[in-house]
Amino acid sequence: MLRTIFLLSLLFSLSNASVQDFCVANLKRAETPAGYPCIRPIHVKAKDFVFSLGIPGNTTNIISAAVTPGFSAQFPGLNGLGLSTARLDLAPKGVIPMHTHPGASEVLFVLDGYITAGFVSSANSVYVQTLKPGQVMVFPQGLLHFQINAGKSPAAAFVTFSSASPGLQILDFALFANSLPTELVSATTFLDPALVKKLKGVLGGTG
Amino acid sequence: MLRTIFLLSLLFSLSNASVQDFCVANLKRAETPAGYPCIRPIHVKAKDFVFSLGIPGNTTNIISAAVTPGFSAQFPGLNGLGLSTARLDLAPKGVIPMHTHPGASEVLFVLDGYITAGFVSSANSVYVQTLKPGQVMVFPQGLLHFQINAGKSPAAAFVTFSSASPGLQILDFALFANSLPTELVSATTFLDPALVKKLKGVLGGTG
Amino acid sequence: MLRTIFLLSLLFSLSNASVQDFCVANLKRAETPAGYPCIRPIHVKAKDFVFSLGIPGNTTNIISAAVTPGFSAQFPGLNGLGLSTARLDLAPKGVIPMHTHPGASEVLFVLDGYITAGFVSSANSVYVQTLKPGQVMVFPQGLLHFQINAGKSPAAAFVTFSSASPGLQILDFALFANSLPTELVSATTFLDPALVKKLKGVLGGTG
Amino acid sequence: MLRTIFLLSLLFSLSNASVQDFCVANLKRAETPAGYPCIRPIHVKAKDFVFSLGIPGNTTNIISAAVTPGFSAQFPGLNGLGLSTARLDLAPKGVIPMHTHPGASEVLFVLDGYITAGFVSSANSVYVQTLKPGQVMVFPQGLLHFQINAGKSPAAAFVTFSSASPGLQILDFALFANSLPTELVSATTFLDPALVKKLKGVLGGTG
Amino acid sequence: MLRTIFLLSLLFSLSNASVQDFCVANLKRAETPAGYPCIRPIHVKAKDFVFSLGIPGNTTNIISAAVTPGFSAQFPGLNGLGLSTARLDLAPKGVIPMHTHPGASEVLFVLDGYITAGFVSSANSVYVQTLKPGQVMVFPQGLLHFQINAGKSPAAAFVTFSSASPGLQILDFALFANSLPTELVSATTFLDPALVKKLKGVLGGTG
Amino acid sequence: MLRTIFLLSLLFSLSNASVQDFCVANLKRAETPAGYPCIRPIHVKAKDFVFSLGIPGNTTNIISAAVTPGFSAQFPGLNGLGLSTARLDLAPKGVIPMHTHPGASEVLFVLDGYITAGFVSSANSVYVQTLKPGQVMVFPQGLLHFQINAGKSPAAAFVTFSSASPGLQILDFALFANSLPTELVSATTFLDPALVKKLKGVLGGTG
Repeated sequence: MLRTIFLLSLLFSLSNASVQDFCVANLKRAETPAGYPCIRPIHVKAKDFVFSLGIPGNTTNIISAAVTPGFSAQFPGLNGLGLSTARLDLAPKGVIPMHTHPGASEVLFVLDGYITAGFVSSANSVYVQTLKPGQVMVFPQGLLHFQINAGKSPAAAFVTFSSASPGLQILDFALFANSLPTELVSATTFLDPALVKKLKGVLGGTG
Repeated sequence: MLRTIFLLSLLFSLSNASVQDFCVANLKRAETPAGYPCIRPIHVKAKDFVFSLGIPGNTTNIISAAVTPGFSAQFPGLNGLGLSTARLDLAPKGVIPMHTHPGASEVLFVLDGYITAGFVSSANSVYVQTLKPGQVMVFPQGLLHFQINAGKSPAAAFVTFSSASPGLQILDFALFANSLPTELVSATTFLDPALVKKLKGVLGGTG
Repeated sequence: MLRTIFLLSLLFSLSNASVQDFCVANLKRAETPAGYPCIRPIHVKAKDFVFSLGIPGNTTNIISAAVTPGFSAQFPGLNGLGLSTARLDLAPKGVIPMHTHPGASEVLFVLDGYITAGFVSSANSVYVQTLKPGQVMVFPQGLLHFQINAGKSPAAAFVTFSSASPGLQILDFALFANSLPTELVSATTFLDPALVKKLKGVLGGTG
Repeated sequence: MLRTIFLLSLLFSLSNASVQDFCVANLKRAETPAGYPCIRPIHVKAKDFVFSLGIPGNTTNIISAAVTPGFSAQFPGLNGLGLSTARLDLAPKGVIPMHTHPGASEVLFVLDGYITAGFVSSANSVYVQTLKPGQVMVFPQGLLHFQINAGKSPAAAFVTFSSASPGLQILDFALFANSLPTELVSATTFLDPALVKKLKGVLGGTG
Repeated sequence: MLRTIFLLSLLFSLSNASVQDFCVANLKRAETPAGYPCIRPIHVKAKDFVFSLGIPGNTTNIISAAVTPGFSAQFPGLNGLGLSTARLDLAPKGVIPMHTHPGASEVLFVLDGYITAGFVSSANSVYVQTLKPGQVMVFPQGLLHFQINAGKSPAAAFVTFSSASPGLQILDFALFANSLPTELVSATTFLDPALVKKLKGVLGGTG
Repeated sequence: MLRTIFLLSLLFSLSNASVQDFCVANLKRAETPAGYPCIRPIHVKAKDFVFSLGIPGNTTNIISAAVTPGFSAQFPGLNGLGLSTARLDLAPKGVIPMHTHPGASEVLFVLDGYITAGFVSSANSVYVQTLKPGQVMVFPQGLLHFQINAGKSPAAAFVTFSSASPGLQILDFALFANSLPTELVSATTFLDPALVKKLKGVLGGTG
């Protein structure tokens, strides 16, 4: 019994050194370049490491698709671990429009249906494949890519990213759904100003 | 037309600078600490970025479970991108035994069935949850963890890691399925030598 | 004199340990995820660490602008040092079109003229400024950004990146100057197929 | 004299830019994924960079051994510098039981006595050596390893880690000294439930 | 219109996940090993990403030269982006004395005049070049280097670093402008104590 | 028995994925920015992870001291693991002269004797301590530091670095033991040209 006490005292002294196994985000505190400050380990629960992506997102929208993110802001247990998650849902004809993740590479696992996915490299090469359930595709960091429902039934995918805060920049929103002046959009994309204004109208942009 | 030619010459000069978008592994060359050397971009095909994890692994074995890895050795397109993948299959009563990934954190997405999963921290705290399809759990880098089929039907999961070469150290194999002398195993685990020898017998170890 | 010999022998034994101060790229060898293999230190010359960006690029083209890269492929001394360089030249009305660097943040220093530069964040916010000579602007990694000549005389800038291989993805080229099928471009950008085909014609794309 | 003043004003303006040479931990503030926030440089003393590992740990315990950590929690000057330290003491027959450091590689320098040390790789290979004073052994990140006194006199070692918070997971404690249910331990280790319960009894575990 | 609302709700939900595109420094908060905590994105302005290095520094000093830093402490928009900036001005005969940046590599772009620049490697090799406007030189991390005006007119350069906090250690200041005791300086540099005392006098050191 | 075979086939298939636990350097191959290419795991022996620093270096030299490095070039098992080692020996009055490690922080553990050690920060602050056996001091990356025997008997220390290739730049050698022209040394250090020439004579420099 005495030995057990000695052993446990060793255990406890060592455990003080090991806080940094994980760093569940304290979302109320300011972020740092490496992520959120950690909540104290004593307040961490098993459920902090679990997130639910089982419910399809609402695809009744202009793109017939939905992205449900599980980044560190939604899933604080990921903070500092270099990974994050999301679920994609695509109704028939659904499209996840051309977009990038500025801070992460992505792997996509098809859960249901058929998805045509692709990316374009810096060298302007095109890499497109049509995927079936159980297939995985990887999209290198920062490159433009897209996913389209390639079948007649709903499709879904589980995706992970190589950062807890990968970011998401949707091309059409970046160009047409904010206050970037029409003349700048037109000059930097070679699209006709009238078309830019029209698309800004559809997507809620101004200027 | 002339303008197009000028434009394309710009394009081509720039594309020479962009090889490192990705680095599909040349598995015939020696690895480096950062991964395998790249094959030349001109030889890269779209299918290099796709891998199939759609077929359940064979669970007719002692653990009634299977791990199908999609690391850079199997899925060369992942090389250098900081991510890798695997599929877990657990027949009823199946178990992925206690193990670690020395070089990566892991996220697990339940595809089918119910899985009880857990990990133990450096501070010796236990984090266990029973997960249903669509739930995600994260396992911080290097910590002992396990997955068990918690239902009566087969279970499956898709997992990703925060490294293209996460490693996998299965506790029982590390202790009992190699030539580590029985006396060293016994001395460092407090297990009785006779038990160690018996387990070595079951798992194919010597010494 | 004897002491000097002892001292020098110390020096020489230590110098064997210090190869990795720098890693001038051997461009004939296959890249790795961390960059090119190094040439042997004995073959490294002072001029390997120097590159010339003093000559304006040719702006007689469709964008009235030029990007002259000094990445590791052009400037091997940068390899492994986490930095690269380029020069931008913009004739009056010149435009560096909307683009991203998938693997690096960028700082731009205006050498001559006036440049309106901007980027759009993942949160779809717009950050635009008009810069004069001597002003610096930073563009965070992977975000869409552009530069336009804001004056009536030529403008020029020196830029650096936080990686020796930052990559460069020009939006219009990624969408319209390759073989990405018109129907996929249209579906993922909401641009009319006829317009996509027209732009493909201008930029040399097919499909 | 005037020149000196100019020179010093240069000095002082520059010194404002250099806070991040080091980051002595403010242990009262919440950790971040990159370590603790820094105390202000003006409060940093030379002694913040010094720690004492000169006194042997108390080896009057069940393992006849002691680990004295000098991680960032004990030695705040290490914070952010990617290194930490510890001292191992092994009485005759002493054992540092099978364990891992989830977040760091380790180098061990034998101070006194003879130590048999080893690790097991992901490929299940065994690497064991008996070390004498002055010998160094490296243990790659996250792999199971151990140290045993191989002589008849006390042994000691100084160890360093490639992270300021390497963590420490002792196998027997992770399995038997917490509330992880006996049935889960048994199922994931193939140890008999009765044995698991017995070891839990010895090590203070429950369930 | 309804579709637009759906689309925008998608946009807004996604934008919550993307804070970490950038991390403008909150200089009032304690630094961490990865940089300063971020101000809230809603408070970030376009001008936070702009800094002015257009005005030559005052070279009326003992070195006839000036360094104007734009590190994260001066230019908070750089925080977390792995880059920083500075301007060098050298009057005729001006010298940026032998110095190191402990935490970053450097690229230098000559704006005006002629600059002789060089560095010494760990292997004690010397790499010196005389640069003209438009030439770039790279200085690997942590190595002693210098810049001298090589012409008869003022020279200037724009420099960037591979870290937002590169540090700057000027050799003469480190040796002679602080309280490091003369005997320690002399013993560790082989300079005569009388000379050390004299230089301490010139540079404001004590001891 | 059949089960064992199944189990072992699982084991072997998994072990193919785990090469990157370590990367013992192949010193005959060209280095990369991340270190040397790895030898094949099948050729790795336990002794590749062991190095001997038990024999004092020869201190019969001008500095009455010796540095015995165990970097990746001498100790290939360290390659890719982010750590390296060295032994310092200081006879009475011995001095490890002012130096930097451009690519690593250092921890020093005093084995024997008394050592006065110190470093100077970018802010020009001085941190000096006299250490006794068993004390540890940390030296942040890239900063000038030194060690002096502070007693009357030989002193020795074991040091580790936060990189497998930390580099070592000894100030006096960098200034006086190579071909850097006397006029450049003098101009950038404010030392008298005659003194520079004299020190070049002592240390074997030219120019």
